[in-house]
Amino acid sequence: MTAETGVTAPRGFVASGVHAGIRRSSKDLAVFRSEVPAVGAAMFSRNKVQAACLLVNRDHVAQAEPQAVVVNSGVANSATGERGKLDALATAAEAARLLELQTEQVLVLSTGVIGVRLPLDRLLTGLRTAVPAMSVEGGQAAAEAIMTTDTKSKTTSVSSSGFTVGGMAKGAGMIHPDLATMLGFVTTDYPLEPGEAIEFLRPAVDSTFNAISVDGDCSTNDTVLLIANGASGITRSPASDEEFRAALQQVCEELAHKIVEDGEGVTVIAEIAVTGAASRDEAKAIARRIATSPLVKTALFGHDPNWGRILMAVGSAPYNGGYADVDVDRLTLSYNGTVVVDRGAPQFTEPDVSGPSCTIELDLGLGSGTASYLTTDLSYDYVRINAEYTT
Amino acid sequence: MTAETGVTAPRGFVASGVHAGIRRSSKDLAVFRSEVPAVGAAMFSRNKVQAACLLVNRDHVAQAEPQAVVVNSGVANSATGERGKLDALATAAEAARLLELQTEQVLVLSTGVIGVRLPLDRLLTGLRTAVPAMSVEGGQAAAEAIMTTDTKSKTTSVSSSGFTVGGMAKGAGMIHPDLATMLGFVTTDYPLEPGEAIEFLRPAVDSTFNAISVDGDCSTNDTVLLIANGASGITRSPASDEEFRAALQQVCEELAHKIVEDGEGVTVIAEIAVTGAASRDEAKAIARRIATSPLVKTALFGHDPNWGRILMAVGSAPYNGGYADVDVDRLTLSYNGTVVVDRGAPQFTEPDVSGPSCTIELDLGLGSGTASYLTTDLSYDYVRINAEYTT
Repeated sequence: MTAETGVTAPRGFVASGVHAGIRRSSKDLAVFRSEVPAVGAAMFSRNKVQAACLLVNRDHVAQAEPQAVVVNSGVANSATGERGKLDALATAAEAARLLELQTEQVLVLSTGVIGVRLPLDRLLTGLRTAVPAMSVEGGQAAAEAIMTTDTKSKTTSVSSSGFTVGGMAKGAGMIHPDLATMLGFVTTDYPLEPGEAIEFLRPAVDSTFNAISVDGDCSTNDTVLLIANGASGITRSPASDEEFRAALQQVCEELAHKIVEDGEGVTVIAEIAVTGAASRDEAKAIARRIATSPLVKTALFGHDPNWGRILMAVGSAPYNGGYADVDVDRLTLSYNGTVVVDRGAPQFTEPDVSGPSCTIELDLGLGSGTASYLTTDLSYDYVRINAEYTT
Repeated sequence: MTAETGVTAPRGFVASGVHAGIRRSSKDLAVFRSEVPAVGAAMFSRNKVQAACLLVNRDHVAQAEPQAVVVNSGVANSATGERGKLDALATAAEAARLLELQTEQVLVLSTGVIGVRLPLDRLLTGLRTAVPAMSVEGGQAAAEAIMTTDTKSKTTSVSSSGFTVGGMAKGAGMIHPDLATMLGFVTTDYPLEPGEAIEFLRPAVDSTFNAISVDGDCSTNDTVLLIANGASGITRSPASDEEFRAALQQVCEELAHKIVEDGEGVTVIAEIAVTGAASRDEAKAIARRIATSPLVKTALFGHDPNWGRILMAVGSAPYNGGYADVDVDRLTLSYNGTVVVDRGAPQFTEPDVSGPSCTIELDLGLGSGTASYLTTDLSYDYVRINAEYTT
């Protein structure tokens, strides 16, 4: 773990992580910023029940380019009503004062228990320690401060010709579910124009953070953020844009994998690849249906080679008020490299599913729609962790 | 358990259940019929991967009014290709010969392991025993012969002014998942005209069999069937139609409840009632989302009063390519009779969730859409049963 790992890997970013007393003993408050003017974009949970901080952040992103981010763990500031919005705003305002930014340039994220107010005094006091402590070496501390029940901090960075993309994340689901927020923060010193960041971020998120499933539940606080400050000083070209796109994709992919791998209770990871669907959206609906089926997931846990459960899931993928298009006579299904159904005909083969990872390849034989998904098994520990947690 | 319970409770129906040798030792073949000409209707699984027998039954129902039904347990005749359709047809043809009916008047249903051919010889030999054995007393034996891993046979009947509605069912999910087919058979001596049965059956099924969830997975073989033979001889009126509708609803409700209660591993049953949704379809989408959320279901198992998980589910109910309409400031949520959120404001109350049953009442405050759902917890036993099963 080097000092420049994570959000401070690109030039011109500083960060810190401190213990503000929101959680009992671990670091619980992270701050990071670009030291030079930057552009940014954020993607938020589509859940109709949104945390107070998300409502504030949406406003801020609409009004200004984000320059700095405050993240607390321990309390989610969700289902806290009007009071919660004021608490988030007060946090952004105090951070802006300390950072000499406008309030709208600061985003505030919270992850933790739902339905509990932020301990605002501790948070603001903590901020006054965290802001002066920010440094290029602080990326790792920041990554630790955003953890809830994650067992490992999650950072990564990719350096390309003349620029760097860095990032940190915290994990989703299969950990304490009310702390199940997925947060992803990506920084880069690649130069982007205002309004451009979202065009780069969206496709990268769609195929990474939005293509993982631990339990199919979608938190009220999920956020992925990109800040680009141009501090690399490189001159852009179509070729460099392609390189940036690839580096961004790789950072998002690595962070998403780390989230899945750190799911408590996870014993098997499965990659689902759907091809030949009638459309891309149908491919995604089918991949997601397989990835979230309790019967498929318990079969993964049991190392059960039974593909009947996969077929059942394939045939019932919600799409447009009905099910995604499937013609059983055209589909080919491979399980860990063994063809089990060949254009509708059962092969009566027995795939080897003894290992901790698994591939499910489905060719629907209908069109050119493709999608992939990363999922996990459903284990005793999943039930234990999620049943034993009480407010 | 009286002799007239189940499908032979109404006048003019006979049934039998025998051991044909498809399963090791239990009864595995059921036959029942109306002794007089009848009308009927069937509703089949919407899963795009359909069992061979379903394809044959769809044809039959389109061509003739069903008079008799053959059901085998042990082998599902699903994912068996063209061969499976011929096996189902051969079964219907032999039953029709023995019953002196047309092939199209016989429906054939199978429940059991996917991807395995029907043992046709044993099945046809069994039919030759089962058909002559049919009697008014045979309803209970038939209910036993359609069981797979059900722990109890499921029959019921309701008698009203001058007519009777009877039924039997077998259970879904949380039992061996590949044997998870849900079958419901309803008979009545109430007189219906051809084409009418489906109009009575559909609303009853929508609010009962289609409003239960054990694991959110939808089998390739699910079927609910109604046969009405008019043998009661009563004269219909709008009032008697209302009575019939109510009796049919009650029979479907009781059978659906019996299926949920018999789910192996089930320790908690929850009734979810959604009101005030923008539309009926959105109410149903939200109720279904709560009912199938692994986080809600593990909370039920853990007797966890945390309603944050319910809110999260409410906000992310798939509907029309997005999420069903929710305004968190308008919603009121009660958990076992205790209001936990009142028009968006958290009440910081602690509901008593110590018992084996649970009610979740959600008023969205948006419109007049209502829906309800019956669901279960997600227990260690669910994982054990579904992980340990191997083909």
